[in-house]
Amino acid sequence: MSRPTYVVGVDFGTLSGRAVVVRVGDGEILGSAVHPYRHAVIEERLPGTGSALPPDWALQDPEDWREVLRVAVPAALAASGVDPGAVVGIGTDFTACTVLPTLADGTPLAESPEWAGRPHAWPKLWKHHAAQGQADRINALAHARGERWISRYGGRISAEWQYAKALQVLEEDPAVYGACERWIEAADWIVWQLTGTESRNTCTAGYKGIHQDGHYPSQEYLGALDPAFADFARTRLEHPLTPLGARAGSLTAQAASWTGLPEGIAVAAGNVDAHVAAPAARAVDDGQLLAIMGTSTCHVVNGPTLAEVPGICGVVDGGIITGSYGYEAGQSAVGDIFAWWLRQGVPADYQAEADTTGEDLHQLLTRKITDQPVGGHGLIALDWMNGNRSTLVDHHLSGVIVGLTLTTRPEEIYRALLEATAYGTRTIIEALETGGVPVTEFVVTGGLKKNPLLMQIYADVLRRPVSLAVCEQGPALGSAIHAAVAAGAHPDVRAASAAMGRVQRGAYLPDAARADGYDALFAEYRLLHEHFGTGPDKQLHRLRAIRNTALTTDGTSSSEV
Amino acid sequence: MSRPTYVVGVDFGTLSGRAVVVRVGDGEILGSAVHPYRHAVIEERLPGTGSALPPDWALQDPEDWREVLRVAVPAALAASGVDPGAVVGIGTDFTACTVLPTLADGTPLAESPEWAGRPHAWPKLWKHHAAQGQADRINALAHARGERWISRYGGRISAEWQYAKALQVLEEDPAVYGACERWIEAADWIVWQLTGTESRNTCTAGYKGIHQDGHYPSQEYLGALDPAFADFARTRLEHPLTPLGARAGSLTAQAASWTGLPEGIAVAAGNVDAHVAAPAARAVDDGQLLAIMGTSTCHVVNGPTLAEVPGICGVVDGGIITGSYGYEAGQSAVGDIFAWWLRQGVPADYQAEADTTGEDLHQLLTRKITDQPVGGHGLIALDWMNGNRSTLVDHHLSGVIVGLTLTTRPEEIYRALLEATAYGTRTIIEALETGGVPVTEFVVTGGLKKNPLLMQIYADVLRRPVSLAVCEQGPALGSAIHAAVAAGAHPDVRAASAAMGRVQRGAYLPDAARADGYDALFAEYRLLHEHFGTGPDKQLHRLRAIRNTALTTDGTSSSEV
Repeated sequence: MSRPTYVVGVDFGTLSGRAVVVRVGDGEILGSAVHPYRHAVIEERLPGTGSALPPDWALQDPEDWREVLRVAVPAALAASGVDPGAVVGIGTDFTACTVLPTLADGTPLAESPEWAGRPHAWPKLWKHHAAQGQADRINALAHARGERWISRYGGRISAEWQYAKALQVLEEDPAVYGACERWIEAADWIVWQLTGTESRNTCTAGYKGIHQDGHYPSQEYLGALDPAFADFARTRLEHPLTPLGARAGSLTAQAASWTGLPEGIAVAAGNVDAHVAAPAARAVDDGQLLAIMGTSTCHVVNGPTLAEVPGICGVVDGGIITGSYGYEAGQSAVGDIFAWWLRQGVPADYQAEADTTGEDLHQLLTRKITDQPVGGHGLIALDWMNGNRSTLVDHHLSGVIVGLTLTTRPEEIYRALLEATAYGTRTIIEALETGGVPVTEFVVTGGLKKNPLLMQIYADVLRRPVSLAVCEQGPALGSAIHAAVAAGAHPDVRAASAAMGRVQRGAYLPDAARADGYDALFAEYRLLHEHFGTGPDKQLHRLRAIRNTALTTDGTSSSEV
Repeated sequence: MSRPTYVVGVDFGTLSGRAVVVRVGDGEILGSAVHPYRHAVIEERLPGTGSALPPDWALQDPEDWREVLRVAVPAALAASGVDPGAVVGIGTDFTACTVLPTLADGTPLAESPEWAGRPHAWPKLWKHHAAQGQADRINALAHARGERWISRYGGRISAEWQYAKALQVLEEDPAVYGACERWIEAADWIVWQLTGTESRNTCTAGYKGIHQDGHYPSQEYLGALDPAFADFARTRLEHPLTPLGARAGSLTAQAASWTGLPEGIAVAAGNVDAHVAAPAARAVDDGQLLAIMGTSTCHVVNGPTLAEVPGICGVVDGGIITGSYGYEAGQSAVGDIFAWWLRQGVPADYQAEADTTGEDLHQLLTRKITDQPVGGHGLIALDWMNGNRSTLVDHHLSGVIVGLTLTTRPEEIYRALLEATAYGTRTIIEALETGGVPVTEFVVTGGLKKNPLLMQIYADVLRRPVSLAVCEQGPALGSAIHAAVAAGAHPDVRAASAAMGRVQRGAYLPDAARADGYDALFAEYRLLHEHFGTGPDKQLHRLRAIRNTALTTDGTSSSEV
């Protein structure tokens, strides 16, 4: 009987990083630690200079990410009681598209004294939403030129992705763009910190970097966006791609000293927090859609064939698991919407009641509203408070609540918001199936899976059983599974998933009567969706433009819709 | 030098009654007292039986009104220090259409042991909104038959008015309808309590009772609604009408004992709280629009000619003042919307801040939002949380908020709600002017005139100066002015208004830049107004029907849209 071996998975989220120590044989998590980012999301003022950021910006500090390696990994190791010498590999995953400009050696421009005072030198977090104008031009030009890749992305490249964000840098601060030698996903940058050498992974290159059929977009296309952008992909992105689960390199002495792990162990290719979670939830077969539900929701599902589905984020060969076409879709805010309401929309007497009963506000509102019959609040909301990633790919949309009366209560709006996100998910699943990607199972992972009312609403709205990933740290476990494969401990990710992943099938079942009620409400949601999302009157765009103009001192910027 | 004389005005509002003692010579208020109704608005359960009321019901208890005579009038007298013997008249005004079934002697059915347990025996408050189906049929039949009177009411009879409410009684509880010998406005019923004899006033008969050109609707028309309804007007409404400011009768010994006033003094004809306030604000000339802004807003304006304006509540010859055509329009909720938000939408940390600073929540939100540039919140709301009285006459509409983001704050929604009511008022003024009723001045009375942010928003949205009635008790003073005329102390209401009314002209002036900003936002409001209010897709009706069905045990009632 051989000595058990272990792997470490590190999940870099929006507000913190989490490390887990996992037994290779069965996926048991023996230790875990979380480290919050000191700067969290930088939305108001640039650290250091304190200068104000424009609306819709969202940055992060790369040093906050390194700190996770230095703090959370040793803490997880300590908590696990595992001998570091028994750890054979480390894998990581990251939010995406979170992307930064670096020098050729990987030094973030944000850490160079020359550039640290310029906002565009800093990493742009996935939810940086100030590049919609650039995205609009990227899309218009792609369609005008008939670029074949555009239909792999639902017909629309997101303002969240590498090109729109890079083009914004070029246009708004060409000096920073000129100093940027590599434009790299944080998912790959963190692997660079671990291995000392640059690598690029198949997943982010495909979904966020428009890498299709072996190529990035052509110099002609990029040059037509802006002559100075023509060599963007060639000079700042191009690099051999590493498949998911492959070994990107070996842990350097420096990274070993940060983490307390042995120098030279396997470091897995970078990955995305959503995609990496599929094997942890045993959702790697074709048709098993995994919804990673937290502040936002990401949907990933494998399909056997290449389909071009309007409005999804993308399809990438091997984007989730080698050998299948990986489809990704998403909702820009889910838990963030609920948190917004809990923070802003619940009055003091409710707080007082919660203090008395010992509930938190979520529990209080849930208790007050769980038993209301479907449709009893008379409300429909559009879940676009942070824009719409799928199927509209439009971050200048905003939220709508319809049906308010003088008797509408906070818990009714709360439930309408829960339901709105379920309608958003149903819209995505229907788009996938209409587009030729069968969805045979709905599996949930992420923090929101612990919300029974929400899960039951999803079962009823989708009229499908909801399966739940068992692991509370799905992405971190997924990263560990990839680390095990990179270390050669399992032959491939499917086998590692079978050994190390866990799922509870059919944890919530739909109720036919409630599902009928939700069918009627979903029809109303769809009408609102069409009016505000796809109709000819771009009212939400105009309101945002009015807002941005009003909030900008000189009244001239941010007026594009 | 003759000894000064006094009059008493009593204003019956939605939640309380207020009495004032006023000097006839100059309108000075010498004493005032408020008495809240014990049952306030009865919306949930019927007093006595405790049986649940259906959605959208709103009742009151007539004994609560009598109690105002017994408590508030003596209290106001005592506060004034006036010798009751110097009081020469009393005038009253009431919310409308607040209407009740009585026996032939004026006894409310709600006070008869036989009927008190039946919800339909009780007075229906103006905001009882459960007769929309009846109103829809009243309107459809009027248009189908080409009834001339329908165009005097903007083409739509409101569900709040006498006929829809009476028809609901007939259809839902024919026994109560059968026992009802008089169907009478509370405005006239309270005068009956004071004088001992029935009277009917020109104002409510015209605006709420469809009395036009000397006639109520014909028996043929009413019989076509329901054969049992054919004699409704003849048997339950018909009575000689008393003009506003005329003497309806003399104070009975019993009423004198309730009030402490001298038996036999003049009692003025009944009046409506909105209309009666015009002379108190010196807004009796043609074109001076008075907005009575409280829980809801009522707009009254005189015009020299008869115009038929789509969507207004009504035009009545002498409906506000003898000799002019009185036009009425309204917004079903204004202050109620703000109160709803302050009650439901402001979180505990705001309350804690308000507790620290000594502000109330209104003051806190106002301070936080006053300086935001126009449009800075990116929001548009529809002010239909209690339906839309003018210009859509549709109480099955509901509120909408558009443009929400994860950074939207409670004070931003609050301001959007303030603005929404201003857009609603602008819509009404534009309808009047388009329809041939010039509006030369905008005058505000009622509790909301004390809200500087709201008044400035109205000035900016309307691009007009806002004049303010000086008196804090406009309707009560208006009732006193009518009492003075009824007592013969002034020759007519215009003369009494000049002597006893007060106004501050141009208290708020529009700012051109803000008005430009609001023009853009008003255009967006109008688009929402059209989509949800007049467009072909009756989504708000469907959502209300879904709600009412869901909340009704058997799932069958209240499904009309």
